[in-house]
Amino acid sequence: MTTTLVSSAKREVRIGFDQPFCIIGERINPTGRKRLAEEMRSGDYSRVEADALAQIEAGAHMLDINAGIPLADEPRILAECIQLVQALTDVPLSIDSSIVAALESGLSVYQGKALVNSVTGEEERLELVLPLVKRYGAAVVAISNDETGISEDPDVRFSVAKKIVERAEDHGISRADVVVDPLVMPIGAINSAGCQVMEIVRRLREELKVNTTCGASNVSFGLPNRHGLNAAFLSMAIGAGMTSAITSPLHAETIQAVMGADVMMGHDPHCKRWMSRYRDPPTEGALTRERGRGGRARRRSV
Amino acid sequence: MTTTLVSSAKREVRIGFDQPFCIIGERINPTGRKRLAEEMRSGDYSRVEADALAQIEAGAHMLDINAGIPLADEPRILAECIQLVQALTDVPLSIDSSIVAALESGLSVYQGKALVNSVTGEEERLELVLPLVKRYGAAVVAISNDETGISEDPDVRFSVAKKIVERAEDHGISRADVVVDPLVMPIGAINSAGCQVMEIVRRLREELKVNTTCGASNVSFGLPNRHGLNAAFLSMAIGAGMTSAITSPLHAETIQAVMGADVMMGHDPHCKRWMSRYRDPPTEGALTRERGRGGRARRRSV
Repeated sequence: MTTTLVSSAKREVRIGFDQPFCIIGERINPTGRKRLAEEMRSGDYSRVEADALAQIEAGAHMLDINAGIPLADEPRILAECIQLVQALTDVPLSIDSSIVAALESGLSVYQGKALVNSVTGEEERLELVLPLVKRYGAAVVAISNDETGISEDPDVRFSVAKKIVERAEDHGISRADVVVDPLVMPIGAINSAGCQVMEIVRRLREELKVNTTCGASNVSFGLPNRHGLNAAFLSMAIGAGMTSAITSPLHAETIQAVMGADVMMGHDPHCKRWMSRYRDPPTEGALTRERGRGGRARRRSV
Repeated sequence: MTTTLVSSAKREVRIGFDQPFCIIGERINPTGRKRLAEEMRSGDYSRVEADALAQIEAGAHMLDINAGIPLADEPRILAECIQLVQALTDVPLSIDSSIVAALESGLSVYQGKALVNSVTGEEERLELVLPLVKRYGAAVVAISNDETGISEDPDVRFSVAKKIVERAEDHGISRADVVVDPLVMPIGAINSAGCQVMEIVRRLREELKVNTTCGASNVSFGLPNRHGLNAAFLSMAIGAGMTSAITSPLHAETIQAVMGADVMMGHDPHCKRWMSRYRDPPTEGALTRERGRGGRARRRSV
């Protein structure tokens, strides 16, 4: 029963085989969000703040923080966002960057035990990121690709994951602190993408005994009714043993698919959480709330 | 790759490991439907007709026909319903009764290869139902309980299923023609009900190599937001290898959970069926249709 413990100054969250599924809110990420990118670059973090609160209210257990804006001072912006979000909420954070200096800057201001997102199986990344993870006592997301790219062969992806887990142990990082991302490919392009993930997740759990995560919404890229497809994927991935996902909690179907799967896994004893959310369906009035400094209306879809 | 072939006079349906999930519409069943029971007893089959058409339009691949009305002439009513539904549609039927004479009456008028619902592991049932299945060249649902009741131990339920499959072979019925129902218990009462089903289904598929079915909605008995919970269950059961279910297709969430799971299993090449259903979301006007002889409005929820 592997458990990955992450924390803020005041709260611990457990990602684990016998725990409810951990939703890591993906929204604080300027990739593909032009307005957010411009605001973050100019030091306006009002949307970051609103996104943090909305995701937690919708059911996120952790938040991913990404400040990847081209030509911007990512280490500074990432650290500022982390400090802001930690002042606002007490959920643990995932510090998300492909720039090692930004990861370090984020870790240096973070209060608690963060999840570093991410390291890959590439030799250079392993030797840059893992010492950092060890130094700050963090946990780390291990993405199962390497110098050769992303294999369509589940065996290859599994063995890349295995290499990262073993290298982490060489660096003194317990495998309980490595959360493997088996890589979710768009099923519109690769028909076997769903089966691949389920097979790798089962092996990661049974053979490597590690926790898992993924960028769930990638599976539905380019297809209609994405939330419906993401919901089916999430329930099935949880059934296969996945223990967390970086995804948007702002859709009723996502939360329902995850909470329903928690019930099915026996991770919601007496269906207590399910009943408390669904016994009295929210009225239409409760669906619209004022959010954020600017008083923007935000639809609360759960 | 086990395939169970069922048919009407004009159409074949395959239940199988490499096939899209088979939805067997459960609505034509007077249990708990007082008005339907009264109508069926008095020979008014207008609701049976409407239910048949509505379920097929909503996405059912087969229909279950049950005429279990206390103190009524079940063999006659069941046969009449089957003839009526077969005159109206060409989907294959599941002939559903606990009375052997009713099964026989239904089989005697059925055109094609029916699914007999059901036999259990009880000695008397085995020796009454299996010869009938063999005589009419039908397929059969095998429910994994016996004289001792329904075990909470997945190993016991598996071994009851194994006994039925082997006994069917003794009667000359191929295991491809036995569709095992592992029995879905209400998860509000039994916290491990979901895990039990997924474990048994995996073993039935890998070890016994048989197709599977279940009364899916039983899992959510007594809980709020049943369709949401049923949806998560169905996606997960399909992920575990379940190949059909007796359930209501009249809920958008059920169809979405099944079709999404088909995509994830690689059973919807190029996501063609998913795209054709969801590319152009139905307009509000399309949701309400006139249905049935009496011109009753029926909400079409898919």
